[in-house]
Amino acid sequence: MDKQPMPPDVVVRRLPLYARTLSYLQQEGKKSVSSQELGARINVTAAQIRKDLSYFGQLGKQGIGYNVEELLHHINRILGLSQQWNVVLIGVGPLGQAIARYSGFSEKGIHIVGLFDVDPKKIGTDFAGIPIRHVNDLPTVAREHTVRMAIVAVSAEHAQEVVDLLVKAGVEAILNYAPVIVQVPSGVWVRHIDPVSLLHSMTYYLAREAPVPPS
Amino acid sequence: MDKQPMPPDVVVRRLPLYARTLSYLQQEGKKSVSSQELGARINVTAAQIRKDLSYFGQLGKQGIGYNVEELLHHINRILGLSQQWNVVLIGVGPLGQAIARYSGFSEKGIHIVGLFDVDPKKIGTDFAGIPIRHVNDLPTVAREHTVRMAIVAVSAEHAQEVVDLLVKAGVEAILNYAPVIVQVPSGVWVRHIDPVSLLHSMTYYLAREAPVPPS
Repeated sequence: MDKQPMPPDVVVRRLPLYARTLSYLQQEGKKSVSSQELGARINVTAAQIRKDLSYFGQLGKQGIGYNVEELLHHINRILGLSQQWNVVLIGVGPLGQAIARYSGFSEKGIHIVGLFDVDPKKIGTDFAGIPIRHVNDLPTVAREHTVRMAIVAVSAEHAQEVVDLLVKAGVEAILNYAPVIVQVPSGVWVRHIDPVSLLHSMTYYLAREAPVPPS
Repeated sequence: MDKQPMPPDVVVRRLPLYARTLSYLQQEGKKSVSSQELGARINVTAAQIRKDLSYFGQLGKQGIGYNVEELLHHINRILGLSQQWNVVLIGVGPLGQAIARYSGFSEKGIHIVGLFDVDPKKIGTDFAGIPIRHVNDLPTVAREHTVRMAIVAVSAEHAQEVVDLLVKAGVEAILNYAPVIVQVPSGVWVRHIDPVSLLHSMTYYLAREAPVPPS
């Protein structure tokens, strides 16, 4: 379907932000949006918006801007969000529990179909209405539910081992909350969520200047 | 101190990953590391490593590689990690509770000195040994503890309001877990943690190919 060049990953990573922002604009009753306005909401320039979206066809009209509903629909289709995505979550500690209880996933087409742990006290119980199973049952559940994505919320020590199991079970995309960069074979996608590194990437700037007294 | 050009933000964001990986290498007893080996751990090329680190002085030796301890120490100093950073956490729901209990922050110099909420049932109690206060007490606590950074774990609806309060209280860097892009004045840093968007940036790729059957 694409005759345009493949968008770079940095553009692909921004697409969900466009979708989210357009969805807020839609809730606010906005029919159209300029690249300036959309850019201001996402903290990128209007020129960047136009360049990003140009990878996916001619979407806006000069002087009129983008039709909010059409652009949202188009981006959702590009992101594959017209279908449901079944995911498994590995690690049902405090973080895993918060993730399992977060309603933001199912609202956006992401359904947690299985929780996995190795703690015998947890296995066989339910959390947030989802059964907790032993990680050894991963391949069976992944096959039964056509699971292609997973969320990893285990400790740094066990993350690579869990990721290897997931890859073996056919999982192709992993969101890793463990504070370690995991290795995956080519063809498997991984994104990291690392709050400490994000905070440290800001201490870099703060360390350069004296504290500003509050107004 | 810097005579080199300012590093772009994308390089600054990678620095904590270098620090984290070097810290693992140190635990493994490694004395030196090549840019190839460091790159393989972080999933960037050796050339990128050398280019990134060149912003911060001549750090490696041709044919010998980087001294793990020295490079770690140097990066930690660049990131301002020789000092303690006091942060406040706003929102003590399930996610905020998981964040408050996460030991990874204090191990890396980030100390949560205050929890804030608006729920009268929570205010005045402790969680994970930290008192929960009303958000109205933010300015006092921020001043008393020289708080320059904050973590926001409230709903999307309240995120901007909370961020405005934080900025007013003198906070200069915000890690935002709410699924909305918040606006901050110039001079204030913000990073977003958005698991849904990260998952969607991977469904983009998966939607392009048929599922791979597990091996």
